[in-house]
Amino acid sequence: MLEYYDISGCYILPWSMKIWNRMKIFFDAEIENMEVEECKFPLFVSEASLHKEADHIEGFAPDVAWVTISGDDELLNPIAIRPTSETVMYPYFRKWIRGHRDLPLKFNQWCNVVRWETSNPTPFIRSREFHWQEGRTAFATKEEADEEVLQVLGLYRRIYEEFMAVPVVKGMKSENEKFAGALYTTSVEAFIPNTGRAIQGATSHCLGQNFARMFDIHFENDKGEKNMVWQNSWAYSTRTIGVMVMVHGDDKGLVLPPKVASKQVIVIPVPYKDADTRAIYDACFETARELNRAGFRAETDLRENYSPGWKYSHWELKGVPLRIEIGPKDMARNQVRVVRRDNGAKQDISRTILVDQIRDLLDNVQQSLFDAAKQKRDACITVATTWEEFAAALNEKKMILAPWCDEEEVERKVKERTKGEMGACKTLCTPFDQPELPEGTLCFASGKPAKKWTYWGRSY
Amino acid sequence: MLEYYDISGCYILPWSMKIWNRMKIFFDAEIENMEVEECKFPLFVSEASLHKEADHIEGFAPDVAWVTISGDDELLNPIAIRPTSETVMYPYFRKWIRGHRDLPLKFNQWCNVVRWETSNPTPFIRSREFHWQEGRTAFATKEEADEEVLQVLGLYRRIYEEFMAVPVVKGMKSENEKFAGALYTTSVEAFIPNTGRAIQGATSHCLGQNFARMFDIHFENDKGEKNMVWQNSWAYSTRTIGVMVMVHGDDKGLVLPPKVASKQVIVIPVPYKDADTRAIYDACFETARELNRAGFRAETDLRENYSPGWKYSHWELKGVPLRIEIGPKDMARNQVRVVRRDNGAKQDISRTILVDQIRDLLDNVQQSLFDAAKQKRDACITVATTWEEFAAALNEKKMILAPWCDEEEVERKVKERTKGEMGACKTLCTPFDQPELPEGTLCFASGKPAKKWTYWGRSY
Repeated sequence: MLEYYDISGCYILPWSMKIWNRMKIFFDAEIENMEVEECKFPLFVSEASLHKEADHIEGFAPDVAWVTISGDDELLNPIAIRPTSETVMYPYFRKWIRGHRDLPLKFNQWCNVVRWETSNPTPFIRSREFHWQEGRTAFATKEEADEEVLQVLGLYRRIYEEFMAVPVVKGMKSENEKFAGALYTTSVEAFIPNTGRAIQGATSHCLGQNFARMFDIHFENDKGEKNMVWQNSWAYSTRTIGVMVMVHGDDKGLVLPPKVASKQVIVIPVPYKDADTRAIYDACFETARELNRAGFRAETDLRENYSPGWKYSHWELKGVPLRIEIGPKDMARNQVRVVRRDNGAKQDISRTILVDQIRDLLDNVQQSLFDAAKQKRDACITVATTWEEFAAALNEKKMILAPWCDEEEVERKVKERTKGEMGACKTLCTPFDQPELPEGTLCFASGKPAKKWTYWGRSY
Repeated sequence: MLEYYDISGCYILPWSMKIWNRMKIFFDAEIENMEVEECKFPLFVSEASLHKEADHIEGFAPDVAWVTISGDDELLNPIAIRPTSETVMYPYFRKWIRGHRDLPLKFNQWCNVVRWETSNPTPFIRSREFHWQEGRTAFATKEEADEEVLQVLGLYRRIYEEFMAVPVVKGMKSENEKFAGALYTTSVEAFIPNTGRAIQGATSHCLGQNFARMFDIHFENDKGEKNMVWQNSWAYSTRTIGVMVMVHGDDKGLVLPPKVASKQVIVIPVPYKDADTRAIYDACFETARELNRAGFRAETDLRENYSPGWKYSHWELKGVPLRIEIGPKDMARNQVRVVRRDNGAKQDISRTILVDQIRDLLDNVQQSLFDAAKQKRDACITVATTWEEFAAALNEKKMILAPWCDEEEVERKVKERTKGEMGACKTLCTPFDQPELPEGTLCFASGKPAKKWTYWGRSY
């Protein structure tokens, strides 16, 4: 899935692009329906553009990589590598938007961005170069922008839950945690039970008119009045793959959900000395072919120099959802043995009904992975209404749902108080799906009246 | 199609990605059949890796962009942005290849590369950042490598001729013009009649064992002997789009071949004062819908604030292959008027047979574009057997086919002698499809015995 590289924080993705592409096909089709145009903007951004929006650059400045030399020559002006493309694209939004008929303007690009972070890089999760899609849109009204923010967030939820089989919480980021320069930020948040850390899965921001003001992006409405546009910005990255790996992986290696697995079924011959090896190999080949014809992604492993046992471990490590074994006994009974990667369950299936059974099994594996992940995640969620409950839950590496007064200063203090080896605790999001907040409920941290339920935790 | 950017040599591709993606789908399917795996390698390359292959780095060194600063800190070691990825990928080929069972190893990635060239950047054709696919493969034998070189070159020919409707010549680059570090380079060469310049369309290289030697990429064969791998490298870039634009474009703007056009048919209402405008608009809508259902990419332009004439020019500029006009007379006769972008031909078509007729017309436009381009290109090819003929043809901006002794020194001298405002003339390629070379034919430049027919010309 991933190989380390000789430059820290950069990784090689040799065999995971197919998973990435499967989600890309889904996402591209959905945003094409939303009339988003695909584009490519440059990798480089001038210092002047990058520095135009003050909050925004403040958020990124320490991590920007600068090109200063070409060949043997020093460049007249250093040029930044995009850490994100708002400031790359918005000067052209200004140019392209004249009247209300130019709106909405919607672009998306698939590209690489660079954030030269000095804190621990983590494969997939926090890398210096990463791959993502970034959508940048502009509207005449806030209402249209608001609507799109949630529409895209819904797609991100589906990518996690329907494709990756990873449960997420949709919600609103706090003022402290929102994207620098945004009016508000929504996100989907996942949780990794093994490490007790939450992870921001993807974000969909309403930028309000902040960038429009800085980049002077105006349009003339149908009454001839000059107005500023409302803008959104939304992205998900190869981090999704890392989340999936961490959520489903086990001691034997990867566990891939069938919807994204490049190989859904691996067919392995299990010959015995006296058996008709040729016939068994043919049956494997035929079985894979039948499954491929039915639209599944099946392959055989007919290598003669590896034992069946070695092959089992090999394909378990790679996370293939189903393994089919065919031996002499199976041949005699016109059946195959099917073994699930997720729970190890084995069953013999008659070859006459194989396609339907495999379809059901793959659906079942996909659903089971999600259900198991959700059960584990839910078991990690703790409600805390007092600081003591909160601190205890944090010790137990929980994802904590707590009533909060929604004051920035209070969040900062919680961060301060929880600082330590494990990293500070902060808000993850305020879930859109709010439990009832009984009148008189107090903030767990400040004792002031609580305004909402918010998720807190340590985070990647 | 393209917008200039505030950093010289970088361009914005706002609406041309769909064309790019259409070729990508074709190419990806073909190389998947060849069992090439998709991957992503890092944007950055360390100085040590970059400098390992001497000829290779000599070819790129003047154009390499270096990152030296992150945030406010100077990096300990400057890091290069890949100008191409041989040196990024081959250390990992070394790691992944152990025995003959690991071969062939075949990877392809779609990515951006940076060559900070100081000579005139030209949109699509020569840009500092560009997008391409780069295939990197390793084989146990030279025969397998040789075979793949030509197989991929065949795909490049198809991209140009079948999709872009641009005729190309398949051939071998000279020693002077081959890829730095390659054993040999094959290419498809296009020609732009308007400017009298040839352009290298795409290249497929056999690297021999040069990089294997430098990066120590060995495998153990089935007899337990240690051997070096044979490697290939092949790429085509967004330049393809530039070539297409230059070959087919005319005074009215773009002319897009139907196979790659995002919009193949634009349907425009032509109402009159007294006519039933609603019915005409409905007919336009219905016509587009019928064509879309039949699998074409059709759209309407029902904007009320623009005249039909304005719309005609607008969509001609954008190169849409067919325009359908529907006015009162067409309504009365249950017909539409169809106008071709490529030659302006108009015809009335009954709505009852529209789908079949549009299918034929689109096929015909695609073929006509290719035929017209080939006729123009062929008219630019001149055979020259003496220096005088050669010089005259070069003055007339021709693509020159000349008998050549195949000596590097002679090519260098021709370059020297033809230097000037227009740029020097060099070999384009030695076509695989060789005309007969009568015995005793002499080299046009050196007077020595000629070994082959080679194309010469000024080039982008």
